[in-house]
Amino acid sequence: MSKYDTICAVSTAQGTGAIAVIRLSGKESFPTVLHIFKRKGELMDIKDVEPYKAYYGEIFDPIPDDKPLIDEVLVTFFKAPHSYTGEDSVEISCHGSEYVQQKVLELLVVRGCRLAEPGEFSKRAYINGKLDLAQAEAVADLIASQNAAEHQIAVNQLKGGFSGELQELRSQLVDLTSLLELELDFSEEDVEFADRSKLYELLDKALKHIGKLTDSFHMGNAIKNGIPVAIVGETNTGKSTLLNAILGEDRAIVSDIDGTTRDTIEETFTIDGLTYRFIDTAGIRQTSETIEKIGIERTFKKISEADIVIALLDGTKPLKQIFKAWSNIVSHVNVLTQELLVYVNKKDAMDAGTMFSLNDDFIDYMKSDYEKNIEKHGGYMTDEYCYSITGMDLYDILSILTFSYISAKNPEDVDDLKSNIRRKTNTPKIDGNTVLVTNIRHFEALTHAKESLEAVRKGMDDKLSADLLAEDLRQALYHIGSITGEVTSRDVLNNIFGRFCIGK
Amino acid sequence: MSKYDTICAVSTAQGTGAIAVIRLSGKESFPTVLHIFKRKGELMDIKDVEPYKAYYGEIFDPIPDDKPLIDEVLVTFFKAPHSYTGEDSVEISCHGSEYVQQKVLELLVVRGCRLAEPGEFSKRAYINGKLDLAQAEAVADLIASQNAAEHQIAVNQLKGGFSGELQELRSQLVDLTSLLELELDFSEEDVEFADRSKLYELLDKALKHIGKLTDSFHMGNAIKNGIPVAIVGETNTGKSTLLNAILGEDRAIVSDIDGTTRDTIEETFTIDGLTYRFIDTAGIRQTSETIEKIGIERTFKKISEADIVIALLDGTKPLKQIFKAWSNIVSHVNVLTQELLVYVNKKDAMDAGTMFSLNDDFIDYMKSDYEKNIEKHGGYMTDEYCYSITGMDLYDILSILTFSYISAKNPEDVDDLKSNIRRKTNTPKIDGNTVLVTNIRHFEALTHAKESLEAVRKGMDDKLSADLLAEDLRQALYHIGSITGEVTSRDVLNNIFGRFCIGK
Repeated sequence: MSKYDTICAVSTAQGTGAIAVIRLSGKESFPTVLHIFKRKGELMDIKDVEPYKAYYGEIFDPIPDDKPLIDEVLVTFFKAPHSYTGEDSVEISCHGSEYVQQKVLELLVVRGCRLAEPGEFSKRAYINGKLDLAQAEAVADLIASQNAAEHQIAVNQLKGGFSGELQELRSQLVDLTSLLELELDFSEEDVEFADRSKLYELLDKALKHIGKLTDSFHMGNAIKNGIPVAIVGETNTGKSTLLNAILGEDRAIVSDIDGTTRDTIEETFTIDGLTYRFIDTAGIRQTSETIEKIGIERTFKKISEADIVIALLDGTKPLKQIFKAWSNIVSHVNVLTQELLVYVNKKDAMDAGTMFSLNDDFIDYMKSDYEKNIEKHGGYMTDEYCYSITGMDLYDILSILTFSYISAKNPEDVDDLKSNIRRKTNTPKIDGNTVLVTNIRHFEALTHAKESLEAVRKGMDDKLSADLLAEDLRQALYHIGSITGEVTSRDVLNNIFGRFCIGK
Repeated sequence: MSKYDTICAVSTAQGTGAIAVIRLSGKESFPTVLHIFKRKGELMDIKDVEPYKAYYGEIFDPIPDDKPLIDEVLVTFFKAPHSYTGEDSVEISCHGSEYVQQKVLELLVVRGCRLAEPGEFSKRAYINGKLDLAQAEAVADLIASQNAAEHQIAVNQLKGGFSGELQELRSQLVDLTSLLELELDFSEEDVEFADRSKLYELLDKALKHIGKLTDSFHMGNAIKNGIPVAIVGETNTGKSTLLNAILGEDRAIVSDIDGTTRDTIEETFTIDGLTYRFIDTAGIRQTSETIEKIGIERTFKKISEADIVIALLDGTKPLKQIFKAWSNIVSHVNVLTQELLVYVNKKDAMDAGTMFSLNDDFIDYMKSDYEKNIEKHGGYMTDEYCYSITGMDLYDILSILTFSYISAKNPEDVDDLKSNIRRKTNTPKIDGNTVLVTNIRHFEALTHAKESLEAVRKGMDDKLSADLLAEDLRQALYHIGSITGEVTSRDVLNNIFGRFCIGK
């Protein structure tokens, strides 16, 4: 870094505010600021600068003869290495006028500072060892965080929670490598140091660990990008009304204009610190026509993208038809991997004869109705029929039957439904110790590392030599190291000589 | 102010940035922040807080059992009275995520802080005597400033330049009042202390001073809202092309759509730190019809709003017609109060025979052409004719003739024109000592004060008694005091007893 490679930027949000903060980092940041800053009307000597103290004073332009005052400011100096970047840094807190912000930057640039590139302060923090790569990435995630869960995971990652997990994983792999490298070193002497069953044990532990991390990406990604939710129902069951009610007043206008042009980004809502994202699905129409069936199949295919499926039934329809619609949806939901919520809508318009207040009553009714009326229904509720369309027999279906009556127009019902969505969300409790992989780069690196470890395991099964196994292990370490941006080979060497101390 | 009336707000611009600053002010600001802030993992004791020092640490939520970390922050404590507001204040510099900003505010509000109203920190600064009213208003002006001149005037006002002028003015009036009050006090003893010629002298000095300030409002307002510029010319002289060229690329699109729907706010441009604002005028058409003449008169009336008038002539027209258009515009410009720039456009399309490179040649030509061809022109260039339409005789008109050839399509020509606009702008040199009235409230108060002083002067001419004169003087002081928000009557009393020391 050249002597003049001192960077500066406005660090607060763009636009006009009460105050704005301009940040500098680099060797020349102290002298540069001291050249345009007066305290109590006097220039300060760099010797007199007390770091981490907020100095009140004035930024002025030294070039014109009349040396005009630019602004009254607070200036804080941060001495390397105890700064965010690890370099000498300065923060100038000025009035939030865009003119003042630009003018101060101009004064700094004229004195040899360079406008910082995006993320350059964090990049310097990484280069100077203040943050590892994953932590630096967490800073960006933290700033972008929109909800409590996303924020918590970013904070944990920034604090080094994820890096700690990787550290542990790497330590396991380094142990493995050390064992193998020993075998290699002494291979000419035909000594087998490595205990292969010990290797298997360490490897399976590492594979389990890495698997836990890659598995967490599904939820980590959902938290970052929104947990996918689908509302599925026949046309005119009140899907749009419910959607709008969940999204809130503001979204209703958008949705009313044209359902097909909705931007999915707008179709997110937050419950209890988690963001959900609606998957757009078309209404299902009861049909026997081939072409329409293809369209419906497409909707059912889309359902598979959802973590949570809300089946919406029309309570004003005959019970038989409600049941048919229900079984049709249920049969397309993978109840092992997806959460299903079944709602009978339009309870306000349902007649007393159809209205059942309790699931149990309904289930009982359905069961007895089925048994009593099996002939009357023309056989369509026979097990064979059920199985043909649902893949389950009727009793299996009934055993997973659980639903509620709602009116999509009733805000309390909608709130209950939202609470249920939250309850059905399979998030681990997210606290200060939660580590989830949220970054696709990390996920990819971990996946590559896992592949390499699986190759090691297969190699061991195939009784490959230590040098071949070590190559795959190094690949795994390389991929894990790429996450935190460390050079792993030196670590591996240090680990061998440090722990074994062979003196060679 | 109640014990819990501690206010908090995000002080940086709205939205997401690298960092955001949350500010607190009030008695409880230290303990409130110390309740949610840990340094090196430990809560700080208020006794250990060193003011004006930036503490690195963590904001956490103390309520849930797991006490989650909200953000890594810098916290600076400002001890009353050495803070912006004059109260205990705290600044929390956190990551600029909107979630983090909201969460920190939430933690503060839960602990009894109140969200600050707009301007409440500056209001407290005024209440606590850190700023007077005019200075507090300057803070708002500074934050809103868009150009160098506006910014400089706001900075000067913030630094107390304007308040100092008012102080001086008030001191003059207090002297006046003191003289009159003395006369009042001893009126029963029939002693005339007040030297009326001395009173006249003081009064005229104050009137001159106040007049200087009220006069400055024209320029102050122009600097704040843009200096009004009009481009006047016949239709198809290239007015729109020139307008767009001055406003720059981006504006051209807007202007192309429909000249009449242009928002005047968009029609501003900045030269050398000053903002100019175009006045929309319709093109002038050579006509003898009454109705069209009314429209043209309306344009000429609008010209009177401009500080700077650009007369645009079409160089491809015959010289006679150019001259006629020119004299038509010139006759509607008040050359004593408005600046006139005359441009002959379309120089690229002008034929060599019409093209004159120098003003002098043109003037000579015009003069000789006039003299030689006075008969040929059918008398329309006779002095009588000229006077009837311009109010000037031809030689007077020729004596103020100065213009340039341009092509509105040539960026260099447009740059030259802009430089000329700047040169013709009658701003005082705006430096650290410039005081201009930019605020309509101040202008109104000064105008009222001036009226009161004029009433005093008239009262003295009419030999009114001291008590009646004193009443008007008190009004003038009241109006001036209203600008800085001071209670003036106590000042007047203090001044009398302090200087005269009568011991009554």
